[in-house]
Amino acid sequence: MEREGPARRGDRPGRGPKVRTAVLTAALAELVDVGYAALTVENVAQRANVHKTTIYRRWGDRDSLVADAMTNLARASVPVRDTRDIVADLRHVARSFVAFLSSPAGRAVVATLQSDASRMPEVVAARRRFFEDRFRQADSLVAGAIARGELPAETDTAELMRTILAPIYLRLLVTAEPVSESVADSAARVALAAARAGALRAERG
Amino acid sequence: MEREGPARRGDRPGRGPKVRTAVLTAALAELVDVGYAALTVENVAQRANVHKTTIYRRWGDRDSLVADAMTNLARASVPVRDTRDIVADLRHVARSFVAFLSSPAGRAVVATLQSDASRMPEVVAARRRFFEDRFRQADSLVAGAIARGELPAETDTAELMRTILAPIYLRLLVTAEPVSESVADSAARVALAAARAGALRAERG
Repeated sequence: MEREGPARRGDRPGRGPKVRTAVLTAALAELVDVGYAALTVENVAQRANVHKTTIYRRWGDRDSLVADAMTNLARASVPVRDTRDIVADLRHVARSFVAFLSSPAGRAVVATLQSDASRMPEVVAARRRFFEDRFRQADSLVAGAIARGELPAETDTAELMRTILAPIYLRLLVTAEPVSESVADSAARVALAAARAGALRAERG
Repeated sequence: MEREGPARRGDRPGRGPKVRTAVLTAALAELVDVGYAALTVENVAQRANVHKTTIYRRWGDRDSLVADAMTNLARASVPVRDTRDIVADLRHVARSFVAFLSSPAGRAVVATLQSDASRMPEVVAARRRFFEDRFRQADSLVAGAIARGELPAETDTAELMRTILAPIYLRLLVTAEPVSESVADSAARVALAAARAGALRAERG
């Protein structure tokens, strides 16, 4: 990704949401271009046209920056939509997720998971926080479906979301099988059938 | 793993199953000790006390050797048992798999999946072949359950096995959540519920 023209001095953004957007966009672009291991705060700063101390002041370190960029991206790319029809809404989650994974940013995320970097303790911790946050975002969707009688009362949101994501990640990261929209639809069907059979209650282990 | 004493000249094994076992055991030990990327045919040969041309003649290359060692290990570690009770047999698959993943060899397999090596084309191809083979091994288990009326007639073995493995790998490779026997039992329950609801038919995409 190249700039349209040379940056002018007056372009340097100050504080506020513009800086945040510029930095997170630059972090993702760096992730796509050079990968997680080679990503540096210095290069992100240069790309976003801000000073690197701005990034350190706001995000603390490189991993928090990348985690924030990924969370932001996931919220935008795989939105949790509530149309009061759980069948359609779960299929929508699965399809958006498959579509996201075939985008350049999604491929960068998958490549990060398939890299030596993914075992670094700070990356492990960031992954755990990221998914806790994502699963929590679907809580109201599931609560609505339970209230309408579409899902059993004890259905656990995290278990439901894991069941949708799991077969898609399995194909990408483990079995090396292709992922398509029909894989997404199947994942949503399996999750729904399991939930309705009472197999997706909160875990006790 | 250290030898009990120095190898004598007369110990060098000839052809036959003994060589195969010695080489595959050495390959796994190397995988555990140094990891996939650093594993060499030379070091495996030294460890197995055979000449490296023996390995090249028999396995062709490093990746075929590692793939064979993993297939052999998986057959031994996660056996497909048929007691004519699909509920118990699927739980057995899931539990053996979780137990295997916490062994040194299992951890080496997971570390290989979480490494830059996992994206190498020959490793991608080996992974695909490995799981095709593994899924095929469960065909008679599923056929028996269908014949006894425990599963719907169109249940697809590969989809059933993917549904069991997927949430376990998701926790290890993606969400960084702990894996326990209760995770295994939950995976087996979900797969069974989905199969019985007709959500695990052969895929058309």
